[in-house]
Amino acid sequence: MKKLKIGRAFTLIEPGPVVLVTTNDGKKNNVMTISWTMVLDFTPEFAMTTGAWNYSFAALRKTRQCVISIPTVDMIDKVVGIGTCSGADTDKFARFELTPVKGNKVEAPLIKECLANIECDVIDIVKQYDIVVLRAVAAYFDSSRKEKRTIHAVGDGTFIVDGRRLDRRKLMAARIPSGL
Amino acid sequence: MKKLKIGRAFTLIEPGPVVLVTTNDGKKNNVMTISWTMVLDFTPEFAMTTGAWNYSFAALRKTRQCVISIPTVDMIDKVVGIGTCSGADTDKFARFELTPVKGNKVEAPLIKECLANIECDVIDIVKQYDIVVLRAVAAYFDSSRKEKRTIHAVGDGTFIVDGRRLDRRKLMAARIPSGL
Repeated sequence: MKKLKIGRAFTLIEPGPVVLVTTNDGKKNNVMTISWTMVLDFTPEFAMTTGAWNYSFAALRKTRQCVISIPTVDMIDKVVGIGTCSGADTDKFARFELTPVKGNKVEAPLIKECLANIECDVIDIVKQYDIVVLRAVAAYFDSSRKEKRTIHAVGDGTFIVDGRRLDRRKLMAARIPSGL
Repeated sequence: MKKLKIGRAFTLIEPGPVVLVTTNDGKKNNVMTISWTMVLDFTPEFAMTTGAWNYSFAALRKTRQCVISIPTVDMIDKVVGIGTCSGADTDKFARFELTPVKGNKVEAPLIKECLANIECDVIDIVKQYDIVVLRAVAAYFDSSRKEKRTIHAVGDGTFIVDGRRLDRRKLMAARIPSGL
């Protein structure tokens, strides 16, 4: 898993894939499935919707850190499984055979099996809307991985897999951050 | 374009498609391309990141209304075009041959050519993060439309088209809002 330029990290979130969010509360690793995320800034900053209904929220609030990991379609049943049980009574890393990898900036683990990982600081929580504001501090991408298609939750129990990619870089040149 | 149950509207945003956002400032219609959106609540409430750098923002702030329209892959060059010019000097509905349709709850127009439209009230603006909080008040879906594949902006000028859909409804039954 190689380092990714931090200025490119928003391109992992903007297409709207389901993500896994890892935390470490000082005692153990945990992971949740989240599909309510949004880019806030190219710097990059992200928002995600979560709250006390997710067991991970206590660790997020306490440690002010997490890792956003991007799974691919071959991991769909792990993604669904992670999203339908709780870290309160389950060691999800063990149950779903995920390999935690130590990051460089935060205590929450990267997930070795994922396509990409983004170490994040929690910089704010907008309580009124259950919005957690994140700033990415390091990013990694596994370009050696053959399967690169991410999945998009529809919210009704179905998921849309990435199809083909269309290139409109020339038309959009003026709107793309420099260096991308 | 038939009415869609409002409780299903979040399933249009959760997969993370590029959307068009229309406004009417009392004088004219306008439309912008946005890919920084997020579901906040099943009710449904949405967030989007935008601010004064978008010409539409003044109309959003003044009228507290907009429509989120969901384009499909056959509209990609309109979507890119809309995102790379400004309503300050362009009548985008005319230039991109979009047909405005009167909604039922807000003055901003639906777009006839889109797969789906969601009439929204702006219920708050979180200024610190340029987050506009929207509540959907009516939704419509054109099921007669043959092309239903949406597009996901990567942010570097490329777009990922919807691929196939995987069904995990049984595994997720306990986590899906009732009535979906």
